[in-house]
Amino acid sequence: MVKGNKYGTHRVIEPKGTLPQPAFKISNEMTIYDNEILIDVDYLNIDSASFTQLKEEAGGDIEKIKTRILEIVQERGKMQNPVTGSGGMLIGRVEKIGEDLKNKIELNVGDKIATLVSLSLTPLKIESIMEINPDIDRVEIEGKAILFESGIYAKLPEDMENTLALAALDVAGAPAQVKNLVNEGDTVLILGATGKSGLMCSYMAKKMVGKKGKVIGQARNESRSKFLRGTNFCHEIIIANVLNPTNVLEETLKANGGNEVDITINCLSIPNSELSSILPVRDGGIVYFFSMATSFTKAALGAEGIGKDVTMIIGNGYTKDHAQITLDLLRESNTLRTIFEEKYI
Amino acid sequence: MVKGNKYGTHRVIEPKGTLPQPAFKISNEMTIYDNEILIDVDYLNIDSASFTQLKEEAGGDIEKIKTRILEIVQERGKMQNPVTGSGGMLIGRVEKIGEDLKNKIELNVGDKIATLVSLSLTPLKIESIMEINPDIDRVEIEGKAILFESGIYAKLPEDMENTLALAALDVAGAPAQVKNLVNEGDTVLILGATGKSGLMCSYMAKKMVGKKGKVIGQARNESRSKFLRGTNFCHEIIIANVLNPTNVLEETLKANGGNEVDITINCLSIPNSELSSILPVRDGGIVYFFSMATSFTKAALGAEGIGKDVTMIIGNGYTKDHAQITLDLLRESNTLRTIFEEKYI
Repeated sequence: MVKGNKYGTHRVIEPKGTLPQPAFKISNEMTIYDNEILIDVDYLNIDSASFTQLKEEAGGDIEKIKTRILEIVQERGKMQNPVTGSGGMLIGRVEKIGEDLKNKIELNVGDKIATLVSLSLTPLKIESIMEINPDIDRVEIEGKAILFESGIYAKLPEDMENTLALAALDVAGAPAQVKNLVNEGDTVLILGATGKSGLMCSYMAKKMVGKKGKVIGQARNESRSKFLRGTNFCHEIIIANVLNPTNVLEETLKANGGNEVDITINCLSIPNSELSSILPVRDGGIVYFFSMATSFTKAALGAEGIGKDVTMIIGNGYTKDHAQITLDLLRESNTLRTIFEEKYI
Repeated sequence: MVKGNKYGTHRVIEPKGTLPQPAFKISNEMTIYDNEILIDVDYLNIDSASFTQLKEEAGGDIEKIKTRILEIVQERGKMQNPVTGSGGMLIGRVEKIGEDLKNKIELNVGDKIATLVSLSLTPLKIESIMEINPDIDRVEIEGKAILFESGIYAKLPEDMENTLALAALDVAGAPAQVKNLVNEGDTVLILGATGKSGLMCSYMAKKMVGKKGKVIGQARNESRSKFLRGTNFCHEIIIANVLNPTNVLEETLKANGGNEVDITINCLSIPNSELSSILPVRDGGIVYFFSMATSFTKAALGAEGIGKDVTMIIGNGYTKDHAQITLDLLRESNTLRTIFEEKYI
């Protein structure tokens, strides 16, 4: 066989010149190129926005959802919801590794992996759908998929349930980025500290700032605050309304001896929290937006409007070794693992 | 008098708790607080989106536009277009400086300044509108305005036309950020290098990378490329379609000996160029989005989809000393100044 493009453009059928994700149709021919990996798929984890849409369209009828999934994959060569544009991830076993990759990657035939690139760009062929579990957006199938050379994945660990690993991998980018951004002695504000990525980020930030630093976690009410206090992941906890930037600023200053923080990490899932993220940060500090509800223009104009010279970073779902870094947190902290087992699987 | 809030929240009338920009109504009472500056306003430069809307609403009738501007300022205490939400900037002379600021800022009564924060958050009172020049969105008024302690401004220089200074200040954030981001020896790709901010960024990037670095400017066609070549602001010029990421990648690799670049600066004004910005950058590199047409989610999911570990930065309109840095470029380069005089005033 021959070598394909690192990003999979050799499989784009239409429109030409685009990458596999924005493409309408890609080739799901299952003969692999020398720099591709063939996966024998067990499950698709459809992303939540997509699955909700499919359920509504089918009026909750599981058989109709099955038919629709088969249609989509037939038409596009990938499981990309035409309405939401989103995909999800998959779990399967490595069936074949292209010649070019064999000695370059730490993966063997038979390894169980989760793909960390979206299903919206992954060539997929479904033989049959065995079962759908609508409670956790999971589709059990018989089928194959292909990973491109640039495709990222995680080996599923032996020491934890697949579902636990998946719940953590879903937000893997966030704590890995915190590890890179936060330095010893920093003061860090975590907005949305009680959520899935917020907990991970708080824990990682506390590790990174060391004894001289401080992690301030924001919770939206007394009961959430109490829960967060129980984890011991933050040095200080504030209760503040993230839609009220002045409130967030004042509570942060109170918790930090009147000083602004070095870094804000926004882990919220609601819109209009840009100014609440920017306002408490010192000039020269960093605002890291992990929230997918962030508005680019609101952040850009917001910082200008208050004359804040801060570096604002778009949360990248991928960082080197992010899967490993994140799974290790679950191994390290029983508290974190227990919360994830109770709340997210 | 007393000291007001640094960001002007003491003037917010409704809704309480918000900052002056998102607020519906702020106080334009012209007695200043100790940390405010009173400005005798000469001109309002209404931002282009807002002025276009006002013109359309008034069917092009100048008198109707005047009435509408007076109504808006009467109702809101600031010139914030209710439809577009945007403002603009103003030019005027410093009339009074609050006690608290007198020895802290390099500004004297009588200095001619341009405010660099939006009119959408600036307390304004209009006595009368003398003239409107619809060609350059300029409104000559008799009136007063107030700058908060956090409000940024630029002294208008004696050695250039106000209009020239304004044209440069409009994109001041971009070259100032390039100065911070780009290091000696870097290879930098500028998307939209032939536009207003693109030219500034190319010139600044070439200064920063020195003899060992390389600046690659993207132009969309042969005539633009020829124009850019004439400036000598870039080491290499590529003609590429920014809506086709593969095309941008291939042309960049050709211009850079097969290597990815260290930094992309996106100075485009059109949407859907996120992947074209991300794809040509090496792992560990930087993507700086100055374009207001950037989509946060397309950038975040785009980088994840191709497994790129890059730092993506949201262009902040404000950076320390950005006005000075940018005006100095016009003084330094006759080529840049001539282009700005011919094209942008």
